[in-house]
Amino acid sequence: MPVWLKTSDSGFAPAFDAFLATKREASADVDLAVRNILADVKARGDAALIDLSQKFDSVDLATLGIRVTADEVDAAVKACKPDTLEALSFARDRIRDHHGRHLPENEIYQDALGVTLGHRWTPVESAGLYVPGGLASYPSSVLMNAVPAKVAGVERLVIVVPSPRGELNPLVLAAARLAGVEEIYRVGGAQSIAALAYGTETIRPVAKIVGPGNAYVAAAKRQVFGTVGIDSIAGPSEVLVIADKDNDPDWIAADLLAQAEHDTAAQSILMTDDEAFAKAVEKAVERQLETLPKRDIASASWRDFGAIILLKSLDEAPPLADRIAAEHLEIATRDPDELGSRIRNAGALFLGAYTPEVIGDYVSGSNHVLPTARSARFSSGLGVLDFVKRTSILKLDASSLGKLAPAAMTLAAAEGLEAHRRSVEIRLSEKG
Amino acid sequence: MPVWLKTSDSGFAPAFDAFLATKREASADVDLAVRNILADVKARGDAALIDLSQKFDSVDLATLGIRVTADEVDAAVKACKPDTLEALSFARDRIRDHHGRHLPENEIYQDALGVTLGHRWTPVESAGLYVPGGLASYPSSVLMNAVPAKVAGVERLVIVVPSPRGELNPLVLAAARLAGVEEIYRVGGAQSIAALAYGTETIRPVAKIVGPGNAYVAAAKRQVFGTVGIDSIAGPSEVLVIADKDNDPDWIAADLLAQAEHDTAAQSILMTDDEAFAKAVEKAVERQLETLPKRDIASASWRDFGAIILLKSLDEAPPLADRIAAEHLEIATRDPDELGSRIRNAGALFLGAYTPEVIGDYVSGSNHVLPTARSARFSSGLGVLDFVKRTSILKLDASSLGKLAPAAMTLAAAEGLEAHRRSVEIRLSEKG
Repeated sequence: MPVWLKTSDSGFAPAFDAFLATKREASADVDLAVRNILADVKARGDAALIDLSQKFDSVDLATLGIRVTADEVDAAVKACKPDTLEALSFARDRIRDHHGRHLPENEIYQDALGVTLGHRWTPVESAGLYVPGGLASYPSSVLMNAVPAKVAGVERLVIVVPSPRGELNPLVLAAARLAGVEEIYRVGGAQSIAALAYGTETIRPVAKIVGPGNAYVAAAKRQVFGTVGIDSIAGPSEVLVIADKDNDPDWIAADLLAQAEHDTAAQSILMTDDEAFAKAVEKAVERQLETLPKRDIASASWRDFGAIILLKSLDEAPPLADRIAAEHLEIATRDPDELGSRIRNAGALFLGAYTPEVIGDYVSGSNHVLPTARSARFSSGLGVLDFVKRTSILKLDASSLGKLAPAAMTLAAAEGLEAHRRSVEIRLSEKG
Repeated sequence: MPVWLKTSDSGFAPAFDAFLATKREASADVDLAVRNILADVKARGDAALIDLSQKFDSVDLATLGIRVTADEVDAAVKACKPDTLEALSFARDRIRDHHGRHLPENEIYQDALGVTLGHRWTPVESAGLYVPGGLASYPSSVLMNAVPAKVAGVERLVIVVPSPRGELNPLVLAAARLAGVEEIYRVGGAQSIAALAYGTETIRPVAKIVGPGNAYVAAAKRQVFGTVGIDSIAGPSEVLVIADKDNDPDWIAADLLAQAEHDTAAQSILMTDDEAFAKAVEKAVERQLETLPKRDIASASWRDFGAIILLKSLDEAPPLADRIAAEHLEIATRDPDELGSRIRNAGALFLGAYTPEVIGDYVSGSNHVLPTARSARFSSGLGVLDFVKRTSILKLDASSLGKLAPAAMTLAAAEGLEAHRRSVEIRLSEKG
């Protein structure tokens, strides 16, 4: 059973605090193991990748090869159903169109003192994309990570993906092909992150690593951060649905379950101002669970982390939603735009009853890589900005330098940095 | 003596690789110590802050108070010289003006299928700014971190700063006042990062932590990343100067020393196509060092990490500079704009002989918090974007949902996510 929290209860505040503090993942202490793996790959390169892949993935890369060949990708594409390929192409095109709007603009201007200021954006030269194996090996995620990088202008895009017992998901290879990624390696885990960060004989290092992974991958990304750039550390997925009683309980139940089927650690939360409606949704969830292929996963998620938050009024929703800072926030109320405008912390808003979050997972064109675990308080979904960086530009002449020099020299002196002061002063002396 | 590297030497490529791989900081393994400090503050709050500050900073916060009072800030401001306050105000205004141009714009549009897409930017609610004590306690850095946060609209801005033996730099307090930061705590080290991330009785947690610090602070930021947002992990500062022979060697030498005086681990690199000029700069450095107050630091930096890279032609500069990916890149050549346009990886460009990097440290208006240790390959200087986050927005109606539904359902089915498929399908049934 999901937890019920009622804002009308006197104990609501501490109960809500405790709910927010609930850990959904065991914080496995894999730091030391990962440190050793990183050191091994750094020292031994391909040989370490081969040994570690044998150990963790039961695959012999010495025979199979570390790199996936173009022939293998061809074969994978042929193995996919045409309508699936078509749907992937449709998704890719929409992602490309939407993200194409987000290339940031360069700036250069001269201010009133004659100082030229500005910045220039450039793509990172190379990026590595981690694609999980097993349960979470989603072709849609390949598109969501690779297409923005391509739009940003990243020249070299690399995919690493574990191949347990030599198996690869053909849809992942097909999505890579559709996204224009030709450099794919069948390595996973912390060892693949090490290869991307430090390079091996076969895998040249990249400048930035993105993509979700398990605890080992997350720890590895954290440890190589600085040597390379990383995106966020992804946690289990979550949805918050704010709905009034004018909804079909079955629609809302379906959305809660779409989240819950991802992972036993996923979280689905309903927030409503109508108790009878909440109970109807709860019943609908139970009913729909019965026929769900992934009912074991979904029911565990709903039982352990599901929640129903009953409000006295929908006006209570925005501050509570901001504290939850959900990855996905569906608003199915009379005026979803108005309520949505009062939300500050959320990865993505899905406005109105005809906007199930699932559309955003696949074909809306917006990105489905969104901040999890309350990180929408301080971070954003993946996008073109994650694959570009900014160089600031400054240009002075003797005249504008003369105008800025006195304050600069005063501050350098105040900070006790005489060489700083001199570096300005020496350029003034000619005029003195 | 700085290392000399000549592109005309047959061994240049491996020598340059080795140069790039040089570690300038001992990678102190402080992870475990930091982990214990974080756990202590999480468990015991203020009491841990008091104990740890006694231990590391020799200061009794139980008596002095954790929070710096407004009276103390008043007194600090009064203790500052008027011309220093004026220079700080001048710098603040220029930083505010320049960063004020960088507030990102919201987007909302309807595409050809009737799907409403967009995003909204909002400031993070609260941010903590770490200000180092001791050598690197720079009021200019307070402005560079705090002003962009204020421009972004961050409501609550907190400064933590260690106070060894109870001492605080009055200029730091004055800069905080000028930047509009009123919440200041005299705690430093990993314990202050823990307080900002988890909160204590006195210090409410923040959403994001920025600012440079020592190895303990860096490790703490790395460990709390995810609980809160962080900026980059700062390393020692560096400058690359690309100069032709038409420069005054003394100017260039002054710029190299301005970088070197920061820290024995700082790095100053000269790249030129003229050997006689390079030798003249080297001599000028030696001469200027003699009268420099921080000559011990600057000469150690220049001796251990300084470098002169002699090119056959300035056309060799851009690819080499891109590999160095310097925090600061000065270009003092005949056509600095043209050469600068061929640079991809740099934190900031300083174009022309009248643009010493020092101007960017203080009063240019652009930010002096820039990517170090080659991270300009994948990251940008601090700015308004570091204090805002994006919520994506999606809205469909029955008609546009109908257009996207088939592909979404196909992909959900291909990924084996039946609850996803149903969440779309159920909304179509009314029409069926």
